[in-house]
Amino acid sequence: MFDREYDVIVVGGGHAGAEAAAAAANMGSRTLLVTMNLQTIGQMSCNPAMGGIAKGQIVREIDALGGYSGIITDRSAIQYKMLNKSKGPAMWSPRAQNDRMRFAEEWRMSLEQTPNVDFYQEMVKGLLEKNGKIIGVRTSLGLDIKARAVVLTNGTFLNGLIHIGEKQFGGGRAGEKAATGITEQLTDFGFDSGRMKTGTPPRVDGRSLDYSRMIVQPGDKNPEKFSYLDTPILREQRDCYMTHTSVEVHNLLREGFDRSPMFNGRIKSIGPRYCPSIEDKIHRFASKDSHQIFVEPEGWHTVEVYVNGFSTSLPEDVQFKALRSVRGFENVKFFRPGYAIEYDYFPPTQLKHTLETKLVENLYFAGQINGTTGYEEAASQGLMAGINAHLKIHEKDPFILKRDEAYIGVLIDDLITKGTEEPYRMFTSRAEYRTLLRQDNADLRLTPRSFKLGLASEERMRRVMEKEEKSEKFISFFRKTSYRPEAINPILERLDSASVKQADKMYKVFSRPKVRMEHMLEMEEVAKFVSDNQLNHEVLEQAEIQVKYAGYIEKEKSNADKLQRLENIRIPDDFDYSALKSLSFEAREKLQAIRPVTISQASRISGVSPSDISVLLVYMGR
Amino acid sequence: MFDREYDVIVVGGGHAGAEAAAAAANMGSRTLLVTMNLQTIGQMSCNPAMGGIAKGQIVREIDALGGYSGIITDRSAIQYKMLNKSKGPAMWSPRAQNDRMRFAEEWRMSLEQTPNVDFYQEMVKGLLEKNGKIIGVRTSLGLDIKARAVVLTNGTFLNGLIHIGEKQFGGGRAGEKAATGITEQLTDFGFDSGRMKTGTPPRVDGRSLDYSRMIVQPGDKNPEKFSYLDTPILREQRDCYMTHTSVEVHNLLREGFDRSPMFNGRIKSIGPRYCPSIEDKIHRFASKDSHQIFVEPEGWHTVEVYVNGFSTSLPEDVQFKALRSVRGFENVKFFRPGYAIEYDYFPPTQLKHTLETKLVENLYFAGQINGTTGYEEAASQGLMAGINAHLKIHEKDPFILKRDEAYIGVLIDDLITKGTEEPYRMFTSRAEYRTLLRQDNADLRLTPRSFKLGLASEERMRRVMEKEEKSEKFISFFRKTSYRPEAINPILERLDSASVKQADKMYKVFSRPKVRMEHMLEMEEVAKFVSDNQLNHEVLEQAEIQVKYAGYIEKEKSNADKLQRLENIRIPDDFDYSALKSLSFEAREKLQAIRPVTISQASRISGVSPSDISVLLVYMGR
Repeated sequence: MFDREYDVIVVGGGHAGAEAAAAAANMGSRTLLVTMNLQTIGQMSCNPAMGGIAKGQIVREIDALGGYSGIITDRSAIQYKMLNKSKGPAMWSPRAQNDRMRFAEEWRMSLEQTPNVDFYQEMVKGLLEKNGKIIGVRTSLGLDIKARAVVLTNGTFLNGLIHIGEKQFGGGRAGEKAATGITEQLTDFGFDSGRMKTGTPPRVDGRSLDYSRMIVQPGDKNPEKFSYLDTPILREQRDCYMTHTSVEVHNLLREGFDRSPMFNGRIKSIGPRYCPSIEDKIHRFASKDSHQIFVEPEGWHTVEVYVNGFSTSLPEDVQFKALRSVRGFENVKFFRPGYAIEYDYFPPTQLKHTLETKLVENLYFAGQINGTTGYEEAASQGLMAGINAHLKIHEKDPFILKRDEAYIGVLIDDLITKGTEEPYRMFTSRAEYRTLLRQDNADLRLTPRSFKLGLASEERMRRVMEKEEKSEKFISFFRKTSYRPEAINPILERLDSASVKQADKMYKVFSRPKVRMEHMLEMEEVAKFVSDNQLNHEVLEQAEIQVKYAGYIEKEKSNADKLQRLENIRIPDDFDYSALKSLSFEAREKLQAIRPVTISQASRISGVSPSDISVLLVYMGR
Repeated sequence: MFDREYDVIVVGGGHAGAEAAAAAANMGSRTLLVTMNLQTIGQMSCNPAMGGIAKGQIVREIDALGGYSGIITDRSAIQYKMLNKSKGPAMWSPRAQNDRMRFAEEWRMSLEQTPNVDFYQEMVKGLLEKNGKIIGVRTSLGLDIKARAVVLTNGTFLNGLIHIGEKQFGGGRAGEKAATGITEQLTDFGFDSGRMKTGTPPRVDGRSLDYSRMIVQPGDKNPEKFSYLDTPILREQRDCYMTHTSVEVHNLLREGFDRSPMFNGRIKSIGPRYCPSIEDKIHRFASKDSHQIFVEPEGWHTVEVYVNGFSTSLPEDVQFKALRSVRGFENVKFFRPGYAIEYDYFPPTQLKHTLETKLVENLYFAGQINGTTGYEEAASQGLMAGINAHLKIHEKDPFILKRDEAYIGVLIDDLITKGTEEPYRMFTSRAEYRTLLRQDNADLRLTPRSFKLGLASEERMRRVMEKEEKSEKFISFFRKTSYRPEAINPILERLDSASVKQADKMYKVFSRPKVRMEHMLEMEEVAKFVSDNQLNHEVLEQAEIQVKYAGYIEKEKSNADKLQRLENIRIPDDFDYSALKSLSFEAREKLQAIRPVTISQASRISGVSPSDISVLLVYMGR
């Protein structure tokens, strides 16, 4: 039936699978997306939102690289917020609320409009392997489909087991079947597998809520967007709402703890630490009398509402009784209860930086199968796996993002170097170069690299070059042009900043913390330059950040450069750590297992100490 | 959790369930729709089309009664055709192609906007019964939800078993779980259950088809629509295409017959006779060298295509190879293979005319659970079950449509009187009064009755009254007004119809077969009357049909009246047929089992002869 061999088969149509298929296809690979249900491509299984702290930066990076997540988010957004705007620009994190149905439909349509992407609906039951190399997949009907590379993005479906109170039943998502067969076969190949857990809150009927008893959470006045391309700007937005749990709510929840699969030992696997269930929050922070609940609409028109912050696997009657005690939820009606789900994952230390598995050639993993949590983390892995699967089978160099280049680089390096024993999510704190990895400059950082790969379009590249050129021109204008004291002093006075005696370069006064771009623009010469050169909002922002954070940026760049030297010291593939008796036992064991590619990667492995690194450096003649 | 008792619980969110929920809620019942997956409400499981011969009439009837199917079809239509327009108006049957995603979304949104409809996502595993009365449902989590009436609309999900070639697996639809528990419990209650079979063709990638090798099937030039309300008129339409199988295709399919579950005995249940699989068609009509295939787009934008006429459960490689030999399909790519599905149904002779079960009070069945096939058949049963559930629990008279009132009446009367051993679909030939049951007059027939019930809105009723009034006024104008020979003769001449010598009533000349409304309108007086009275297209059509088919209509009405007399002879509920030894054994057995409500219904039971009816009439003193 599938007579021709595909270049790349992607198993799964969630955030990871959809990005993987799009990337491989857009680079020219004949790609097949196989999924259990073609009608659930691009489903948001959990909250109807994209982005957020560190995650928003990832979406911008995906977009800069030519992935689809940013575009689809913009096309289906119902609210937009830039988080952390009061902090430094490294912390600015875009976030959107989405219309769940629109989001999935946009994904489906975008993939359909991608030449080279074929679709097939069936459960993949097994992998075809020959001499340690993947050569295709086998479906549940026994159909063999050949491919040069396979990307697995199985999400929570591998032996998925749903828990609500004392009940448990197989399923990949509420109302959907689990997938079986793949774990067993990978284990036979020699892969280690583990179990993880995640959860989701109840969905409720918005018509049953009293919003007047909650705090309205509107979107930004001037909403930005995710994609660097010409996606629509949100004119109208839907409000979210905030409310809180209380001691009473906590007590009601506690009544169900003895029937909770989290506390009675039924769920053994570890859930996402930073996205805990409400029972977990009550248990771990027993002294807290209240937790926030964000009430998020599921779309433009639907009455369905997502109860963010109330993820739970307590018995449904306990969920209900407790939620009814939350302010504004007194008459709540459930659409469906929250639940927890356990699923198989494969410790990601079994992967290379390309997300190819070390054990089986041309086999790639992306998303929750690697122990991550979050749409954005999944999507970015899918994108990278898709790119690298294409490159590998076309015998091209791998595409690896370094830790000072992208959050995506941090994510993958963390995964494959340190592994993870609980669902991994991204934070700004995980990135040692976060001042470099901003949401405003993801295009400047990444589009040129992706363009060289043939993934980012010429249009993207043209926009990046223009933005870069204009920002530099503007900064150089500040460096070269002097202010007139009589023009700047009234502004400085107003800002309660020391006035100047004589003319000096604009750059200097602009570096003062209190002086913002808006103030500089009050000077006639600056305003004229902006209008003469048609500098848009993005360029102004870019120039401002680069001027005002120049010190931080320079410092991080120099740190990165220093570390880059270690990054350049490659460790041979067949390096025999067991012979190096001066390494600590733990270091020898972990190095042998993870097989870092560079000294720098070796240094990031937990249990490998600086003295172990010295041993390695000496041994390698440095 | 569900502390308050619902009036009506509807189990299932397909065509039947959605109409049932809407109807009960709109009449004022507090209604809960429980479904395994809230994201699949209103799914078109098979072809992306509504209506067709006799089925189009049903959709119009649903609309006239205040159901939603017509409105939703209009809002999501991508093509519209009036079938059989060359035949008499009894045969005119509207049909629409739909955007599958839009259709489901419109259903979901319409139900969300219906006050009184609540939603809950979970599998219903059992029914709560007390003293022979239904009192609620139990979910798979063990949650009890109380209700005064329950409508079961389980479609193909009850112990659904999917077959493709030699493979079989549990499922309610491709990619979805089967439902268990309900059949077992109903059997315990004493219900008879059986198995039926249906099937669906492969879905394919429209990008892989060569439409230039097929015959284009555009929509109507002036598309009409389904709803009598102000739904949008389709401005733009999408084309369908037609192609054919060939001897070569048939031979390729035959190669798989030994692996076909239809022929190797694996599928024991009976499929829809008039919607057979392609292997069935080849097998039963061995002399036919070719069968039609209609290529239907699945929506406005999607590339997915439905291969109407190629339903099959042959092994997927056989499906594929054979379809590749169909003209235009030489390079076809599959989205998913066709399959057959077996599921439980309950012989509908176990129901009353209200669709309430005879065994358990306040329990209603609608749709495929009653052995029918087709969206329209399901939707109409759902509507009637929803209405009657509401009426029953509010101690009001049941709402029953007679065979001369509606196709819906024919459908339900056939089901409960004759039962069905194969999936039942509607045909015009099933209706003995089909000249009365036209698509153009469903509103005139049914809206007044529904308005009295409190279901059809005032707006609907106002429109019906206006249409009726204006049509009558127009007809009476034709009766009273005389033509001028000099005005009519040039028209008659052109139509090759005998010219008239002297003036006579317009009605007379209009009754001639060749003289159509468009010709009458050529006369100044007629045109003036139309414009003075603002008569629209619908009124003109209505008047024309009533004038030109007056003879047929009168005859059917008088036949119906005669039979009505038998209909008025009610048989007592506790009538003891076993005592009537002069009845044939078969009649006694069937009458005892089916317990007809009237002599007329008794006469329609297969095996009950006219002489049995005479015996009954004598016994009842007539």
